[in-house]
Amino acid sequence: MRVVVPFAAETPKTRLESVLSPPERLGFARAMLADVLEAIVDAGHDPTVVATAPLALERLELPNEVATTTSVTVDKRPLTDAVNARLPGSGATAADDTSDAVAVVMADLALATPNALERLLTTTADVAIAPGRAGGTNALVVCEPAFTVDYHGTSYLDHCETAREVGATLETVDSFRLGTDIDEPEDLVEVLVHGCDTDRAPAYLREQGFELDDRDGRVGVIRDTESLTETR
Amino acid sequence: MRVVVPFAAETPKTRLESVLSPPERLGFARAMLADVLEAIVDAGHDPTVVATAPLALERLELPNEVATTTSVTVDKRPLTDAVNARLPGSGATAADDTSDAVAVVMADLALATPNALERLLTTTADVAIAPGRAGGTNALVVCEPAFTVDYHGTSYLDHCETAREVGATLETVDSFRLGTDIDEPEDLVEVLVHGCDTDRAPAYLREQGFELDDRDGRVGVIRDTESLTETR
Repeated sequence: MRVVVPFAAETPKTRLESVLSPPERLGFARAMLADVLEAIVDAGHDPTVVATAPLALERLELPNEVATTTSVTVDKRPLTDAVNARLPGSGATAADDTSDAVAVVMADLALATPNALERLLTTTADVAIAPGRAGGTNALVVCEPAFTVDYHGTSYLDHCETAREVGATLETVDSFRLGTDIDEPEDLVEVLVHGCDTDRAPAYLREQGFELDDRDGRVGVIRDTESLTETR
Repeated sequence: MRVVVPFAAETPKTRLESVLSPPERLGFARAMLADVLEAIVDAGHDPTVVATAPLALERLELPNEVATTTSVTVDKRPLTDAVNARLPGSGATAADDTSDAVAVVMADLALATPNALERLLTTTADVAIAPGRAGGTNALVVCEPAFTVDYHGTSYLDHCETAREVGATLETVDSFRLGTDIDEPEDLVEVLVHGCDTDRAPAYLREQGFELDDRDGRVGVIRDTESLTETR
């Protein structure tokens, strides 16, 4: 299945500005993207990164089998437009595509695993959605040509309504891993708790001095600046 | 399976104090508890509410089949102690219990559905955990007598470590619904987005004037105090 991974290549993760500098946010965003791409390839699919600016794939230091199955395309349009241009109804079907379905997986789903993605990507519904917090749409699969996305506001509810309007069968995929997008400083806890040992995103945070902290009874992250390594 | 539902019956949900008064917090906590109990019974299991103070089950206005299969016991001890006293290793096995496994499901899992619970409750592992945000343990199933809980700090990681120490097989259940406990004002969004039509918790919030609000681009809740109904 074609799996589109939108990526804000220029100023990613601005809501992490209180804890990470601009180059650190870019490094962390690239680490999460690399983890997501590897999970998609490990699940047996070919990802296409749709980036808002040119992206040097070699900077992601992907394993060879991930690098060779990942393609990058630049689209400067807003997220909603860039995604709709690649859904089944857009007429943009890759020549080697054996399925009409298109998946869209956000680049900041740092907890995504092949198993979690498989639950989404093996759907038999016309539209399947993995919701995120606050009504967001973190990942979805579309094989209904009349379905389009709109990522503004409570997009999960809007997408459910759109599916009903176009007569598409709908599945909601109940996944903590796919439901956790990393946007805010408090989300970094999830990366450190649930990231796999071989993942780049938790490794990147630990290299930058972040660790779990539960001294005040609630679990958060602290940053030990003394142990800081040089920022990429 | 025996399903224990711990409930802070006296001053529940203190972290919602900025948006709900004490009687409203109690009303909302009872609505969530009722939804959780109904989901457990619909999944085919018998819940036992372990409350910190006497709880009048009839105030929950449960359907008859839920009320008749739910029992209540009072245990004033802290959460960790009250749960450990009911795990397989404690020796406290109900006379009518046909299984050695005990499940513990938090009373504020307002999004819990029978399907989501089934994924946890049908585990074949010695210990199965549905993690919550910030390293919490929202629900678990234990059939290993040597396993005990400790809900302080990053309890999910601690419980994984305990399972390894006692040689128990471990499963992590990847569920957005079970991973969403309702603690903070921002969590109310999840109740309004994902709560089922027949659930009490979203109905309670709507009765109190809460609705979704995405006017500033991020989705939150607002409260229309003009439409307030009388607090239970």
